[in-house]
Amino acid sequence: MSGSARVLERCDALARISEEPDRLTRRFGTPAMEEANELVAGWMREAGLTTRVDAVRNLIGRRGEGPFLMLGSHLDTVVDAGRYDGPLGVLIAIEAAQRVDRPLEVVGFSDEEGCRFGTAYLGSSAMTGRFDPAWLELRDGDVCLRDLVGDAGPAREDVLGYVEVHIEQGPVLERLGEPVGVVTAINGQSHAEVTFVGEAGHAGTVPMSLRQDALAGAAECALAVERIAKGHPELVGTVGRIEAKPGAINVIPGEVMFTVDVRAPQDALRKHAVAAIRAEIESTSRKRNLGSEVELLQEFGSTACASGLMEQMERAVERQGFPARRLPSGAGHDGMALGAITDICMLFVRCKGGISHNPLESISAEDAAAGARVLLDFIEHFAPLQR
Amino acid sequence: MSGSARVLERCDALARISEEPDRLTRRFGTPAMEEANELVAGWMREAGLTTRVDAVRNLIGRRGEGPFLMLGSHLDTVVDAGRYDGPLGVLIAIEAAQRVDRPLEVVGFSDEEGCRFGTAYLGSSAMTGRFDPAWLELRDGDVCLRDLVGDAGPAREDVLGYVEVHIEQGPVLERLGEPVGVVTAINGQSHAEVTFVGEAGHAGTVPMSLRQDALAGAAECALAVERIAKGHPELVGTVGRIEAKPGAINVIPGEVMFTVDVRAPQDALRKHAVAAIRAEIESTSRKRNLGSEVELLQEFGSTACASGLMEQMERAVERQGFPARRLPSGAGHDGMALGAITDICMLFVRCKGGISHNPLESISAEDAAAGARVLLDFIEHFAPLQR
Repeated sequence: MSGSARVLERCDALARISEEPDRLTRRFGTPAMEEANELVAGWMREAGLTTRVDAVRNLIGRRGEGPFLMLGSHLDTVVDAGRYDGPLGVLIAIEAAQRVDRPLEVVGFSDEEGCRFGTAYLGSSAMTGRFDPAWLELRDGDVCLRDLVGDAGPAREDVLGYVEVHIEQGPVLERLGEPVGVVTAINGQSHAEVTFVGEAGHAGTVPMSLRQDALAGAAECALAVERIAKGHPELVGTVGRIEAKPGAINVIPGEVMFTVDVRAPQDALRKHAVAAIRAEIESTSRKRNLGSEVELLQEFGSTACASGLMEQMERAVERQGFPARRLPSGAGHDGMALGAITDICMLFVRCKGGISHNPLESISAEDAAAGARVLLDFIEHFAPLQR
Repeated sequence: MSGSARVLERCDALARISEEPDRLTRRFGTPAMEEANELVAGWMREAGLTTRVDAVRNLIGRRGEGPFLMLGSHLDTVVDAGRYDGPLGVLIAIEAAQRVDRPLEVVGFSDEEGCRFGTAYLGSSAMTGRFDPAWLELRDGDVCLRDLVGDAGPAREDVLGYVEVHIEQGPVLERLGEPVGVVTAINGQSHAEVTFVGEAGHAGTVPMSLRQDALAGAAECALAVERIAKGHPELVGTVGRIEAKPGAINVIPGEVMFTVDVRAPQDALRKHAVAAIRAEIESTSRKRNLGSEVELLQEFGSTACASGLMEQMERAVERQGFPARRLPSGAGHDGMALGAITDICMLFVRCKGGISHNPLESISAEDAAAGARVLLDFIEHFAPLQR
């Protein structure tokens, strides 16, 4: 079996490890994640790597001593996920690690998506010494994050660079007709949770004019997020979660929580959009006589890939016979955190229809092979940059 | 202790029987409902009534043989409820039953709110022989409604009339400065569940122009429900529940479910509003390229109170020294179901701020006493109508 065929077969095997019977959901710290880590650790050892799991449950496969190149991606998924977002990069890295002889680590990050505690990039942040102690108090039902992690420790040292292969999760490469692309930067993002507090009341007896309906206010703001994001072609804004309390068909919602995700390649553009959304929340709050609270959960500025590594990656792409195409990343990646301690670089692999975070996520065997060949070539020619 | 003081004390005692530690929630078929039924059954027996629980878990206290007057209200509650909506009418009826000597039943209905299975008026519907067999398949998590009920049997016979005391749950009596009011009719209501299906996708990579965001569609329709309901002063419309799937901060919602509750005193007005909401759902569905489904859960036409019983109730109100004020009911009540088999009549008791379905629900001791005196007077003078 070729290395890339094995990569796809292993993506299929990982897709069967889920918290839920009928769909793929593998969130941080769940038994499904433990099982995935054990399976991948076995593959790492077959590739000649020494494995360990760190204090925040990142899976690390190591070869050699001293300063090393870090490869990897994440093994957690969103709810109802596709099978390539994350695992593809880890499995391609294991294939490459088996074929080269230089100090390196392959990392399966434990919490890139943040779908359980709202802590995206927890695994990679911990490696940079920037684990936020406030995260320890976050809860998922009865489980406290504190119960799942140990002391994250200081920033990793001796990292010569971080390289990640990942599906594009967008439609650009497919439209260009190219299998791989070199990432220029990871767009910045802001995550917030918004709460409106009105007054619960009987759906039959409170006249419309006397209502303080928290859900109506939230609906107005969800549409404002969409309208503001449509104001610039490089901006996106999403309301992904919403919950109304008490949540009964015949009760006016007294409290509604919803999330906001805003991303842009330019930090100023993103911050301008976030400010416009805040203003909309405030004006809705005033107009509808609702209490409101905006909690900024996470904020990442856009992260540039190291130009010297981008050039090395472009040469690897060209040596493998593909045009060197540059594109930004609309999605966030662990490189955003790792950029704090080392040079980062990413290679995107074309995915069908640009669809991701969805069971329909799909890539071709040829494109997986292209990604694997380029990464191997990159590693074989890798020269650390002066920092 | 006076009868009305005991009524309020018993409302307090019932408020401590809840599914949840910190708030009052007592839904159909839960251990909390069983416990409430047992407590109230004890009070019924103290009042000289013979008690039983029927096949759909209604609690029935009986005095005498043959044709009888039915009194009552419900013992289930909404989620995060107040303590008077339902129990007040049952407990005032028990006080009255203790003081009169004629055949009667006091009923504590088991499922008026329908907050567990979406089956409002299940308890009273079963008494009219109109238990819907489709309800048996409804589920609350692992529990199927079929597991909780037996054969509801045919319609009750020999019912001479149904009389219910209930808090107003609206602001009319408070604004008029009057303790009680005679209900003219119960507004009709339509309950529906709406689902939009779009395409889940990555919140960072799918451009706004390519999205099929089910939540944005739902937000538009929630605002349309509000706008349409505001179009007529007697119309109300509410979106009480909403759920987005997969429900992650960084995923565009691929599916959203929300509920719609529409009520009006005139059936034509309500039907017109429901049609306008359906049209809005269809146009949103087309415009946003979303699949949509509207499931009508329940529909009740408006129910007139029997004019002969309203007159008897007005005379009781006046004999007790209050002005006889008539008003419609914006909320639904078990009388909507019982109107199919007997004459119905309701007495409203003023409540503070018109607030209901909310822990802030409150009534004064004087108003509770007024309600109790008027009901007792009504029963003492009750004369069945010719049907």
